[in-house]
Amino acid sequence: MDYDALFKAQLDALKRDGNYRIFAELERRCGQFPRAANHGTGAREVTVWCSNDYLGMGQHPKVMEAMHTAIDRCGTGAGGTRNISGTNILHRELEAELADLHAKEAALLFTSGYVSNWASLGTLGARLPGAVILSDALNHASMIEGIRHSRADKVIWKHNDPEDLDRKLAAIPADRPKIVAFESVYSMDGDIAPIREIVEVAEKHGAMTYLDEVHAVGMYGPRGAGVAEQEGLMDRITLIEGTLGKAYGVVGGYITGSAALIDFIRSFSSGFIFTTALPPAVAAAAAASIRHLKESDAERMGQRERVAQLRARLDNLGIPHLPNPSHIIPVMIGDPVKCRQIADILMEEYGIYVQPINYPTVPKGTERLRFTPSPLHTEEDIDRLVSALGTLWKQCALSRAVA
Amino acid sequence: MDYDALFKAQLDALKRDGNYRIFAELERRCGQFPRAANHGTGAREVTVWCSNDYLGMGQHPKVMEAMHTAIDRCGTGAGGTRNISGTNILHRELEAELADLHAKEAALLFTSGYVSNWASLGTLGARLPGAVILSDALNHASMIEGIRHSRADKVIWKHNDPEDLDRKLAAIPADRPKIVAFESVYSMDGDIAPIREIVEVAEKHGAMTYLDEVHAVGMYGPRGAGVAEQEGLMDRITLIEGTLGKAYGVVGGYITGSAALIDFIRSFSSGFIFTTALPPAVAAAAAASIRHLKESDAERMGQRERVAQLRARLDNLGIPHLPNPSHIIPVMIGDPVKCRQIADILMEEYGIYVQPINYPTVPKGTERLRFTPSPLHTEEDIDRLVSALGTLWKQCALSRAVA
Ligand SMILES: Cc1ncc(COP(=O)(O)O)c(C=O)c1O
Ligand SMILES: Cc1ncc(COP(=O)(O)O)c(C=O)c1O
Repeated sequence: MDYDALFKAQLDALKRDGNYRIFAELERRCGQFPRAANHGTGAREVTVWCSNDYLGMGQHPKVMEAMHTAIDRCGTGAGGTRNISGTNILHRELEAELADLHAKEAALLFTSGYVSNWASLGTLGARLPGAVILSDALNHASMIEGIRHSRADKVIWKHNDPEDLDRKLAAIPADRPKIVAFESVYSMDGDIAPIREIVEVAEKHGAMTYLDEVHAVGMYGPRGAGVAEQEGLMDRITLIEGTLGKAYGVVGGYITGSAALIDFIRSFSSGFIFTTALPPAVAAAAAASIRHLKESDAERMGQRERVAQLRARLDNLGIPHLPNPSHIIPVMIGDPVKCRQIADILMEEYGIYVQPINYPTVPKGTERLRFTPSPLHTEEDIDRLVSALGTLWKQCALSRAVA
Repeated sequence: MDYDALFKAQLDALKRDGNYRIFAELERRCGQFPRAANHGTGAREVTVWCSNDYLGMGQHPKVMEAMHTAIDRCGTGAGGTRNISGTNILHRELEAELADLHAKEAALLFTSGYVSNWASLGTLGARLPGAVILSDALNHASMIEGIRHSRADKVIWKHNDPEDLDRKLAAIPADRPKIVAFESVYSMDGDIAPIREIVEVAEKHGAMTYLDEVHAVGMYGPRGAGVAEQEGLMDRITLIEGTLGKAYGVVGGYITGSAALIDFIRSFSSGFIFTTALPPAVAAAAAASIRHLKESDAERMGQRERVAQLRARLDNLGIPHLPNPSHIIPVMIGDPVKCRQIADILMEEYGIYVQPINYPTVPKGTERLRFTPSPLHTEEDIDRLVSALGTLWKQCALSRAVA
């Protein structure tokens, strides 16, 4: 059997649809964020407009320093799974920091946010007999795969619609364990869940709540614990999940919750147990980043200002972008080939890097450019971006929002 | 519904069976491997005898230096998924290094070895229509979960038994894609697969081969590419998977294979696509480690010597250990409570840390202590370990192998 031919046939189909992905090859430059060298096609020097290092913490002196120090103290790796020689005091310190951040009894680290969702939902769904997982229709792939993996019954409720959730919960027998899984900030549309209403509906039906704050931690709430903190709702959420790889600028994922819940996932979750622990140096860097953003509001304020500025400038030009209350600015294109073309021109002619977002990250027909202004983008960066987009919008005769 | 009560009930059952896990809390100390500070119960200063940093590369000056340099150059994180701003030139360099290591056209990085297995087998099984995955009976959890996730038909063949594999392959229609998944070094028993025979059987039936070399990379073969390299069989394996978190001393996982195969997984695998890329500094450290172990044999030779010494000393004392051709020395206890007791005494009275290996890592009734001598363990370390075990074996009246 010619396996390569099987692979190529499926890749060819992707290419025909314009969904084949080419990764930009960057060289991030410490101290120059959002500037990076580009080793792929296009300008040699680019301004990155689509980073999820939302606040530039990946080059913060405290975070770098913590990582350097931990390398010199403990080396480059953990040396084992958490159970077999891999638990370092720096992991425990980070877990304590995370539990404190979300005002929960305990926290558990995973190698990524993806794994934390996949492993936690997978374990809860598989090990709570008769469990039903109620999943928001736009949940992230990592949650979807975790639910699929658990083989628990799954009920999808309409995106951000507590009334639909209410109806669906009401239809499930009272004695079955129920898990309501949703996100706070949805990363591709940038909309924010009505957390209070969802929590109230869940409480009414005796359901657990599972909240992914991956695109909110570090950025919302007085200490950066996310939207649930901002809304004063953390104590009513059963499990809060987050990442160390986006606003915190490092890598890794986690969950927080009651001591029993965390011990349960720690004890039974394959994706937690059977894998090498994160390097202690990664844990130390993440802890430094969290600590800084617990106290400092400057990064959050700077980000908000830039986001508002870019939105206003796009409005002035009549360039349509999804309205939302978050830091994410999606400019809808609606066609994968056009989306890539625009991104290519921005990269080649303007030194502006924004990745075209195509299927399967977003549904077909909703292809977009997704801009994430950081506190480190300057007003000149915004000027350059907006003027490039203005020129392109004219050239490509893209539909403009009616002014 | 009282969810915490549900969690506690299952945790109580674990505790009753003696399978509840308590992690040792270590502080690895750079330059002093295998010595570590112990922040849990027991001696304050311990010698680690169960690390998977098999060669001590996690504190190698070249590896640390590469990590430090990359932090100063690129910061602490990748800042995005591989597709959305997260691909760094250091990832590409590491992938080139890995493809070269295994003499394959291409390689792909994942956040861990667990994710590389889960995501690759999951994708192959789900996207090759009619695929059957033939899985060795003792495959690692990450492969089992990947196969389960794929929902492809699964056939389990007897551990390390090419004849059984042959019979099972023969029973599958010729036109169905077939994937034979197995490991080279099995980490808990330390036995090594008859790779040549397995490959020949697979070739005869037109099956792909998927080989996990997680416990072999860095340690076997002239350039440390694993057992398949040592046996001159790399070019006959379709996909070789490995980790950067064990002998290479950092964290992360990877697969290597044909360009089409790698592009296929890169393009379709949820666990690759929807997650923040590894920090560039992790990639740089891993690449430095691989490069060093491609050229240097000293670590491998040192390890082999220590392994042989410890085996001989255990034999002298009549302490039974599983015979195997690898670097892993399992001392069978066969009871979870006893296994933990011995480990606790070693930790508390002798400053020797070896994690008790209980269910679900090994089947119930095969609980064991698993020793992994490194080139950095001294002869005095071996003396102390063997004398402690000798005393304990007398005290506990454990069955001795007949001399
Ligand atoms: C909503 C959501 N959850 C989880 C993840 C996974 O987090 P990580 O990148 O840490 O794996 C992502 C993105 O990567 C995400 O967008
Ligand atoms: C055989 C095998 N494959 C894969 C893995 C996972 O690799 P990693 O620790 O890099 O996640 C492990 C152990 O952790 C293993 O023993």
